Amino acid sequence: MYLFSNVLGVFVFDEKFKVEDEILFKDLEEYNNKEKFIDKLLNKHKNLKEPDETAIKNILNYFKNKEFLGNFYDKNLQLAKLNVKNSVNNDNFIAQSVNFIGDIDKSINILVKRLREWYDLYNPEYSRSIQSHELFVQEILANEKHELLKKLGIDENGSIGANLSEKDLQPIKNIAHQIQDLYNLRKSQLDYISSLMDKSCPNIKAVCDVMIGSKLIEHAGSLKRLSEMPSSTIQILGAEKALFRHMKTGAKPPRHGIIVGHPLIAQSAEMMHGKIARALADKISIAAKVDFFHGQFIGDKLRKALEEKFINKN
Amino acid sequence: MYLFSNVLGVFVFDEKFKVEDEILFKDLEEYNNKEKFIDKLLNKHKNLKEPDETAIKNILNYFKNKEFLGNFYDKNLQLAKLNVKNSVNNDNFIAQSVNFIGDIDKSINILVKRLREWYDLYNPEYSRSIQSHELFVQEILANEKHELLKKLGIDENGSIGANLSEKDLQPIKNIAHQIQDLYNLRKSQLDYISSLMDKSCPNIKAVCDVMIGSKLIEHAGSLKRLSEMPSSTIQILGAEKALFRHMKTGAKPPRHGIIVGHPLIAQSAEMMHGKIARALADKISIAAKVDFFHGQFIGDKLRKALEEKFINKN
Repeated sequence: MYLFSNVLGVFVFDEKFKVEDEILFKDLEEYNNKEKFIDKLLNKHKNLKEPDETAIKNILNYFKNKEFLGNFYDKNLQLAKLNVKNSVNNDNFIAQSVNFIGDIDKSINILVKRLREWYDLYNPEYSRSIQSHELFVQEILANEKHELLKKLGIDENGSIGANLSEKDLQPIKNIAHQIQDLYNLRKSQLDYISSLMDKSCPNIKAVCDVMIGSKLIEHAGSLKRLSEMPSSTIQILGAEKALFRHMKTGAKPPRHGIIVGHPLIAQSAEMMHGKIARALADKISIAAKVDFFHGQFIGDKLRKALEEKFINKN
Repeated sequence: MYLFSNVLGVFVFDEKFKVEDEILFKDLEEYNNKEKFIDKLLNKHKNLKEPDETAIKNILNYFKNKEFLGNFYDKNLQLAKLNVKNSVNNDNFIAQSVNFIGDIDKSINILVKRLREWYDLYNPEYSRSIQSHELFVQEILANEKHELLKKLGIDENGSIGANLSEKDLQPIKNIAHQIQDLYNLRKSQLDYISSLMDKSCPNIKAVCDVMIGSKLIEHAGSLKRLSEMPSSTIQILGAEKALFRHMKTGAKPPRHGIIVGHPLIAQSAEMMHGKIARALADKISIAAKVDFFHGQFIGDKLRKALEEKFINKN
């Protein structure tokens, strides 16, 4: 006699492929715990065996019967839904969060441009004296025009900016507040990614920092795929355009992709970039593998090794 | 004897072009009230006359002296600054505000795309059931997942969306809040433009509504320039690309630019668009002229004439 199970239940077939006994699953939960039901039948019937190839064919023929079709369809649909539901994991949150930060930056850029242009009507001297957008927004929200001009040593009457009424200033302040909210959102988002990485990839976080680590995972598609990549691929991840240009035209191959923003590379001499990128990608590759297989935390050691090797040489 | 005034002061020259008397301005305010000082000298000296062409030449020669140069430079600079300062007016605020609304829309689009994608991991059924972004944001902030699914007649367990922890839901809610703030900002910005138009161009506002009227002013550069445009130009303002394509390739000329969004055009049959656009541009042209010269309010009559002519014919 043969034991056979599928999404509908557990079945015992006799040598003529008639159903001798069966336990039908009431819901997917029972299907997920099917071992329990299989054990039950194994205990009840003696001499049960796994069907061989010809037996399988006969058994599957039995299920081709129309009466099962609707049932199969329903159960498989439920199963597929459950799989979709369960496929959402930390990798998705990291990818969405990284892209969200990119979106926040885009929005900030659009709004800051407008803010600067508008504020120029009011106080062009101050706007031009300050490069950092974040600081600019902060300062104009915290200080009055004459205070800001005083910092530059300009008398308010000497400004070529117009005097705006409170009502005409309001929209300018509204933009500034909105931008400040976006900056705050960006910060809390970085904290969130950081906490996600503490859970799923502490080693990558230690080696690459939050932004670069999460960008690598987003770009690779998942932690799993990143862990399967050779370090040479990780090295140029994000520089696909340059890579294909190299392959098509024989231009120089890219030395680094996303990891170019890593402080070890960004803060070192141009000449050393390729060498550091290679070593860094190597360590990231190790970190990703350790993270994927839930190994112990070695990220700090990996990073220290890199820093000792390169920081003193610059 | 000649009376002459410039940015430095008021001067009386004798027939040999020597300074007989003078009053120097202490600041730009005195320059702006120069009539007072001119009257003073006119009362003091008899037989003062306006210098003729040759006299002017001699007088200007006198001021070529180096001792005046620094003084001229300072005073002219101050004057230029004051002019820049005073050149900021309602038109600038309207233009900035219209562009700001465009920027808000861009930011909303970027962030809504991210929100929808992220929220899809959690509750894809609801996200796909609702088209309007604004309503979508409102609803997901006001309701729990199971409430939203109930509206669609779906049981929470039947959803293929993942169950997210409060912590993983937070960033999604943050985006939604940010978008809601932007929608609110957009509304208050429209109110602000509306109040600006009440002051400087009530007739345009009555004929075109806030968005189209303000876009026309922004596109023309100022209310003054809009009031100087022939109605045929107003009709295709904003369709420059199509106009040049028409001139270069002989393609059909554009029938309307910015005004295509006007309810009279948008809600009427395609066939009538050109005709309505022409009549509408005509009324806008009148409204702009009346507004620029601060005439009385006739906007409601202009609009009513248009509506009577076209709304019943559709």
